[in-house]
Amino acid sequence: MSKLLIVSRDADEYVQCIREAGLPDLEIANDPAECDIVLGEPRGIRDLLPRLPRLKWIQSVYAGVEYLVEPGQRRDYVLTNARGVFGDLMSEYVFGYLLAHEKKIFERFRAQQAKHWDRTESGLLRGKTLGLLGVGSIGSHLALTAKHFRMKVWGFTRASEECSDVDAYFHPPDILKFAKGLDYLVCVLPRTEGTNRIVNAELLDALPPHAVLINVGRGNAVDNSALIEALTQGKLAAAVLDVTDPEPLPPEHPLWAAPNLYLTFHSSAKSYPEDITRIFAENYRRYLEGKPLMYQVDFERGY
Amino acid sequence: MSKLLIVSRDADEYVQCIREAGLPDLEIANDPAECDIVLGEPRGIRDLLPRLPRLKWIQSVYAGVEYLVEPGQRRDYVLTNARGVFGDLMSEYVFGYLLAHEKKIFERFRAQQAKHWDRTESGLLRGKTLGLLGVGSIGSHLALTAKHFRMKVWGFTRASEECSDVDAYFHPPDILKFAKGLDYLVCVLPRTEGTNRIVNAELLDALPPHAVLINVGRGNAVDNSALIEALTQGKLAAAVLDVTDPEPLPPEHPLWAAPNLYLTFHSSAKSYPEDITRIFAENYRRYLEGKPLMYQVDFERGY
Repeated sequence: MSKLLIVSRDADEYVQCIREAGLPDLEIANDPAECDIVLGEPRGIRDLLPRLPRLKWIQSVYAGVEYLVEPGQRRDYVLTNARGVFGDLMSEYVFGYLLAHEKKIFERFRAQQAKHWDRTESGLLRGKTLGLLGVGSIGSHLALTAKHFRMKVWGFTRASEECSDVDAYFHPPDILKFAKGLDYLVCVLPRTEGTNRIVNAELLDALPPHAVLINVGRGNAVDNSALIEALTQGKLAAAVLDVTDPEPLPPEHPLWAAPNLYLTFHSSAKSYPEDITRIFAENYRRYLEGKPLMYQVDFERGY
Repeated sequence: MSKLLIVSRDADEYVQCIREAGLPDLEIANDPAECDIVLGEPRGIRDLLPRLPRLKWIQSVYAGVEYLVEPGQRRDYVLTNARGVFGDLMSEYVFGYLLAHEKKIFERFRAQQAKHWDRTESGLLRGKTLGLLGVGSIGSHLALTAKHFRMKVWGFTRASEECSDVDAYFHPPDILKFAKGLDYLVCVLPRTEGTNRIVNAELLDALPPHAVLINVGRGNAVDNSALIEALTQGKLAAAVLDVTDPEPLPPEHPLWAAPNLYLTFHSSAKSYPEDITRIFAENYRRYLEGKPLMYQVDFERGY
């Protein structure tokens, strides 16, 4: 009999979904000391790590597991994250904001409030170039949606070139060459040492002034001061940050009021218990059978 | 030698595109009396109808040709409209507004202005039902985009059931049954006698209160007073009108300030000269060869 600890703000929903999944030899328990499996949100689980003597496997309900791969923490268990379920959610978010920009949704509303029949032409996604900073499962889904809208897609990765919807791949040290050709830059990077401030003044300078930046990865990837400077000087048309460093932003933080910057408070892709339970159930089947689990995190790499 | 009259606000671009197309035996002329072919915007062409003694063919640059099919006007020529080029433009517009609604783009911006870290959950297109009032080439493209976003698609047509991305078709008299099952209603109807005020109080009442209405067809389809009433009473979550009756709206018109109503001033799908020229060039080849033209309008039906 395996014992599962659920550590989530959506615990009630997870209990229901997991009961409905009818997984054999699995009991949901409350005492960490008894449990070999933990399902939940990385931050809450991190605080329990010293109290889990029987721990074998943690299934994160998020893609980002930075709290569990911090140096000095135990690594004597298998950590799996959630993948393959955020792509369509992220596409809805990213293309919602790209379309809002091109269709001038805010400007048209201001025109309406002024009772001004504003026949300004809208822009198009069609034919534009979307640049992906990071092409994992989320980036690949964004590329697919971009192709639906007849866009060009460029991808920046360390080395991989696995998504066939990416028209051109760039690797270090070609990040500025990559940035120069973009209409939109979408950052989908996890928080690691290597992604700190990758969107810096130099990169922002290289983007065309009509470009839009969207960050749906982690806040550490963006140099906030450089971004505010670029927006203030009109070196960038707009930026949309779903993630920031820090989170939440303190009231006095200058990002709140930067021009043409839109904050969305880490709302872009919720972990839906029914989606995550599908991953958990498949991994639990493998766990029972002693097979390798899906979506294992490399503690060194951090994702 | 055929002589072509161009009647368009984008005349210079059309002249350039048509010259680049290198069409044989075709001269662009300025005197209506000489011309057998007219390319342009229906309203401007209508005013010239009595001055076109050699007229054989009019290629409208718009899908909507209501000005050219008014009763009492000459019908002794072939009228073709533009089709197949607006689908992706309309998808960008419609899904831009649907996503803006679900992602709460305006609410989040207001939260940002108030420096409120607004963790309200966003909505999803995934799993929702899009209803199409009219399933021609534009409606079919909207259905395709809806499928990309993993939505259900219902279609209301007079009789046709040609688009395979539509999951369920409804026909008269089942319009209320159709409306009751929708999350979003998108009207893509042309202006005809049969489409006048099809979106009336009864239809708006049948929509669920969380539904969003988008009209990208023609303004005559919507009963303005009934819509304002429905929005005011919260019988509908929001409405987005790219087209209105009248157009432009006079400053005192109540639509300007109706709650949760967004006006976009007929900006949803521009006729791009390079797109329209491709249609014109193919039709001109058929015209020279005496073959039936593509996209012929039925004067009686009106589209």
